[in-house]
Amino acid sequence: MERIYTTEVAAHIGQRVRLAGWLHALRRLGGITFLVLRDARGTVQIVLDGPAARNALDGLLPETVLAVEGVVAVEPQAPGGVEVRDPRLEVLSAVREATPLSLNKPVMKVSLPVFLDHAVIGLRHPTRRALFRLSAGIMAGFRATLDGLGFTEIQTPKLVASATEGGANVFAVKYFDRQAYLAQSPQFYKQIMVGVFERVYEVGPVFRAEPHDTVRHINEYVSLDVEMGFIRDHRDVMAVLTEVIAGILAHLKVNYAAELALLDVQLPAVPRPIPAIYFPDAQELIRARWGEDCRGEPDLAPQHERWLGVWARAEHGSDFLFVTGYPMEKRPFYTHPNPADPRYSNSFDLLFRGTELVTGGQRLHRYQDYLDAAAAKGYRDLAPFETYFEAFKFGMPPHGGFAIGLERFIMQLLGLDNIRLATLFPRDLTRLTP
Amino acid sequence: MERIYTTEVAAHIGQRVRLAGWLHALRRLGGITFLVLRDARGTVQIVLDGPAARNALDGLLPETVLAVEGVVAVEPQAPGGVEVRDPRLEVLSAVREATPLSLNKPVMKVSLPVFLDHAVIGLRHPTRRALFRLSAGIMAGFRATLDGLGFTEIQTPKLVASATEGGANVFAVKYFDRQAYLAQSPQFYKQIMVGVFERVYEVGPVFRAEPHDTVRHINEYVSLDVEMGFIRDHRDVMAVLTEVIAGILAHLKVNYAAELALLDVQLPAVPRPIPAIYFPDAQELIRARWGEDCRGEPDLAPQHERWLGVWARAEHGSDFLFVTGYPMEKRPFYTHPNPADPRYSNSFDLLFRGTELVTGGQRLHRYQDYLDAAAAKGYRDLAPFETYFEAFKFGMPPHGGFAIGLERFIMQLLGLDNIRLATLFPRDLTRLTP
Repeated sequence: MERIYTTEVAAHIGQRVRLAGWLHALRRLGGITFLVLRDARGTVQIVLDGPAARNALDGLLPETVLAVEGVVAVEPQAPGGVEVRDPRLEVLSAVREATPLSLNKPVMKVSLPVFLDHAVIGLRHPTRRALFRLSAGIMAGFRATLDGLGFTEIQTPKLVASATEGGANVFAVKYFDRQAYLAQSPQFYKQIMVGVFERVYEVGPVFRAEPHDTVRHINEYVSLDVEMGFIRDHRDVMAVLTEVIAGILAHLKVNYAAELALLDVQLPAVPRPIPAIYFPDAQELIRARWGEDCRGEPDLAPQHERWLGVWARAEHGSDFLFVTGYPMEKRPFYTHPNPADPRYSNSFDLLFRGTELVTGGQRLHRYQDYLDAAAAKGYRDLAPFETYFEAFKFGMPPHGGFAIGLERFIMQLLGLDNIRLATLFPRDLTRLTP
Repeated sequence: MERIYTTEVAAHIGQRVRLAGWLHALRRLGGITFLVLRDARGTVQIVLDGPAARNALDGLLPETVLAVEGVVAVEPQAPGGVEVRDPRLEVLSAVREATPLSLNKPVMKVSLPVFLDHAVIGLRHPTRRALFRLSAGIMAGFRATLDGLGFTEIQTPKLVASATEGGANVFAVKYFDRQAYLAQSPQFYKQIMVGVFERVYEVGPVFRAEPHDTVRHINEYVSLDVEMGFIRDHRDVMAVLTEVIAGILAHLKVNYAAELALLDVQLPAVPRPIPAIYFPDAQELIRARWGEDCRGEPDLAPQHERWLGVWARAEHGSDFLFVTGYPMEKRPFYTHPNPADPRYSNSFDLLFRGTELVTGGQRLHRYQDYLDAAAAKGYRDLAPFETYFEAFKFGMPPHGGFAIGLERFIMQLLGLDNIRLATLFPRDLTRLTP
């Protein structure tokens, strides 16, 4: 008999079906035993009421893998309104001890370290599973939107010869008889590939050797990277980013209703256009409201970003706010200045509910600009950049792009208090397993 | 004026259009100059015939980035039957020296090392671009097929605490004050995630520190990984793999006709089912044909695989052949034995035109089997496996999976003679740039 999923049971009233999954919970009520079977899609109640049937349960511990054949019946009292009766159980994989954390309560009550230590089991909890289904949905929505806009997917190397982006915070790799590094981002590669495909994206791991132990830092994460050519300036990039965010959220809404409901996620609306404020204007707004003069500051303080989130909500009815024109000094050397005021850049952050979700901007595209910018940054030795700069030497169009941190997107969408919960197996200062 | 692509020009006969791209080629014929403009999608001929117009070209070198406005006219002599006349050129990015390799011949005549040294430019050649479009198409077809079969995409860590798969050939990473390694595959992680989603896939980089300098080795490549639960045995995995290969090829056929034509790729048919031969039977076939007694050999020699490819073509009319049941001794310790003859495994290779394209099989799923298998392999210290084995301790269904090397797929589909041509920026014994 073909196995069906628990979510399909209700379509088979009165029929004998075959199910398979994990023993999620057992509950005895008088002479009746209720077994909850969990599979990848949901759970269903299975009723055992003869002594022989109950004997079949003897010694079965949670997470035992079972195949179950039984008859589907309407039962208004049962979760979902159906249950499976007269079951025949077959143990596919036995379990001989109690799980280190309990999976069968609606909310998992466990400390973060214990959960992370036992993530290989803990991730089976329906709420955790739903979260990572949404994570898959974000990637799918990202790709689908960009495919529709004529972008091409690329895969670029994670092993690189030198730390071209900043220098600090890179992991060193013993690469045969020499040293290599793990890429902090696909920045130069995606720019180079604009010369080939004009519009590219990449979904892949990036590595940051930041020695910070905070709720917002992990040392390996998934970056959703985009780069596009023949732009007027950063505003064309912001327009594509707006479509990408809207496309992701629409994809989640259409395809992940059950997961959104289980996790009680309210998807934000994406106004078109998303409101934008120029960095110096944002500083002036903050001065006017809080009396804090931040002129000369190269960045916004986290509490000011949060307040701008509140302001965007109140003023524009938007959960999203672009801040544009960050001062050049805080941006990477490949950032394109604002031609009208070169102290400021053609870059942007996208704030989501008052926290930075995306960073992007227009990049330099002329070879000489790269030489000048590298010199201004104090890079004496341009050899590490040589092969990348060749792309600019031989004709690159005006271009720009952005990067979305997958885990940060999940964290902010779900209001998680620790980014470690937004990645399957986090890597941080102390954690390399599981 | 909105920019259009060169491939859209023919739909604008008689209209003034705006194009943008790279100066691909310049040809002077008497008083007339033909400029070929290349963008991400194709090329178009632009005709300049006044002295003033020709002056605009003075000093313009190949790869100069241009915006061009002109009038589209029918011209049977022109490639594609149309050309752009009366153009106004605008230089978006100037080029001041000759490119290190020539991009404007139908076939790029350049040695492999020179090409790889200048890949940031060389990848702009239409044939190279087409190849990596197909690469994107393979990934998209892979995901679309698996999404349709109820699989969930995952992203697992590339930084791991120990070399759990074999021990040799791993790259060591300095991870703060300790040692980490780069993952050779997502093997254990995808198995663990079967406990969560039942069916999972991952597209991501894998790292192999193999010190081999051959046309078939690179040290970082993209692995298309699949794992699925609640299988009878490896044959269920083979059935999904068959759908995946067919789905990828169908996706290429529908969406990449231009690239396939440019590269003269003949897509193979995928028979259902793909013919399969049991490993000992393959050895017997080889003995009968070639007089070579390979009984006791744990693997097939490359020339024998090639001959099996010829045999499958002749006997079954198939470019694909499954070889099943490889001896246990050559397979990783997590491989499930054939219950009917435990010398052989429930594993398979998929040969494509006589070369291994995919490896897969059923895995062990019982905790005790892992302990026994690790002991039999001589692993004294099971501590590195502990957190992974926990998944098996707490209930894993019978499961299996496979991995397709993206670059190898491209290499075999296109008949490339070096796998370095199938990856944007290859990493090998000597090469870490660009």
